[in-house]
Amino acid sequence: MPLIFKSILLFDDYTICMEPLKLQMLEPKEKVGLIVVITGNGKGKTSSAMGMALRAVGHHMRVCIIEFMKGDMYSGELDGIKRLAPEVELHLTGKGFCGIMGNPYPYKEHRANAQDAIKLAKEKMLLGQFDMLILDEINNALKLKLVDLPQVLDVIDNKPLLMHLILTGRDAHPEVIQRAHTVSEVNEIKHAYRQGIEPQKGIDY
Amino acid sequence: MPLIFKSILLFDDYTICMEPLKLQMLEPKEKVGLIVVITGNGKGKTSSAMGMALRAVGHHMRVCIIEFMKGDMYSGELDGIKRLAPEVELHLTGKGFCGIMGNPYPYKEHRANAQDAIKLAKEKMLLGQFDMLILDEINNALKLKLVDLPQVLDVIDNKPLLMHLILTGRDAHPEVIQRAHTVSEVNEIKHAYRQGIEPQKGIDY
Repeated sequence: MPLIFKSILLFDDYTICMEPLKLQMLEPKEKVGLIVVITGNGKGKTSSAMGMALRAVGHHMRVCIIEFMKGDMYSGELDGIKRLAPEVELHLTGKGFCGIMGNPYPYKEHRANAQDAIKLAKEKMLLGQFDMLILDEINNALKLKLVDLPQVLDVIDNKPLLMHLILTGRDAHPEVIQRAHTVSEVNEIKHAYRQGIEPQKGIDY
Repeated sequence: MPLIFKSILLFDDYTICMEPLKLQMLEPKEKVGLIVVITGNGKGKTSSAMGMALRAVGHHMRVCIIEFMKGDMYSGELDGIKRLAPEVELHLTGKGFCGIMGNPYPYKEHRANAQDAIKLAKEKMLLGQFDMLILDEINNALKLKLVDLPQVLDVIDNKPLLMHLILTGRDAHPEVIQRAHTVSEVNEIKHAYRQGIEPQKGIDY
């Protein structure tokens, strides 16, 4: 049972008090490799997946992240995630969001990239070396027909038993939702850009 | 402009092809320290905040995380976040979720802890050293009257101009939502525990 001094906080000498804090350690009777879908139109889907990668690393788990749409713009997590190497590897295969935000690439190129990505996902998964596979924005890629439903279901249905599989992106397909253990829908209540505020470092990218 | 070889993926020798990938770097004309609220009953609120910390670290930003409710059970992010030190510091001030899940501590003790936490939040914020302050589960703490609305609004209203402030937890107060730039509500569509699956490492803790 790990012993942490209360409010030490992990690397700070600030203390509210110094009574030792015993952290209870959970251990499920049965280990299950979960299928988790994070969908919806609100902010926080990729962030949530990145947070799960961070949490997994704390347990010495190995994580593979494949970005289906992103890959044309810099975002802080690209460097942040390097701090989690070698347990976490990140693959950028996208060319930005197909058909929006002035994205200059033709559909065919987006489709070719997403096809590479889904092949990579299956290869990585079948290596059996990862405890968690994150397919970021795969739901959008499916909605936009950059990958096909049978391809996505093939990955889900062939998942190693104990590997967690995270699928993010808006417009998750009902058959993907049906196969998942946990599904969250992140809904936008408000977003800074609707107030004319440009994307900000650390929050939006 | 950072140059990454396409699909290199940041630390892997797998390549789909070797055309150099130029990542576009955004830079907002006006920098804004955002107030972001992540609320709702679904899975992924704390994960989302952790993901933002990871993203911020990629930009060399400094992050302070204060856990208002958590602090009695081990969760992987406690070790994961150490990989982001010294830019990120994490403070556990809670004693678990007040009044639920067989939590043994009396209200008075939860309140005293949350009171320490909100004082710590204000102190840390006023140091002016952090680019991002994450108050994890503060919305619950407010709902449960472990902290008071004027205390939370006092933190929000005295936020350094460029510091991002993230407030997570279900049942966000309308006045907190009103002051925020970005608000996401994470709704549970499905959760593994409703299928009798115990919390799993890397996903739930």
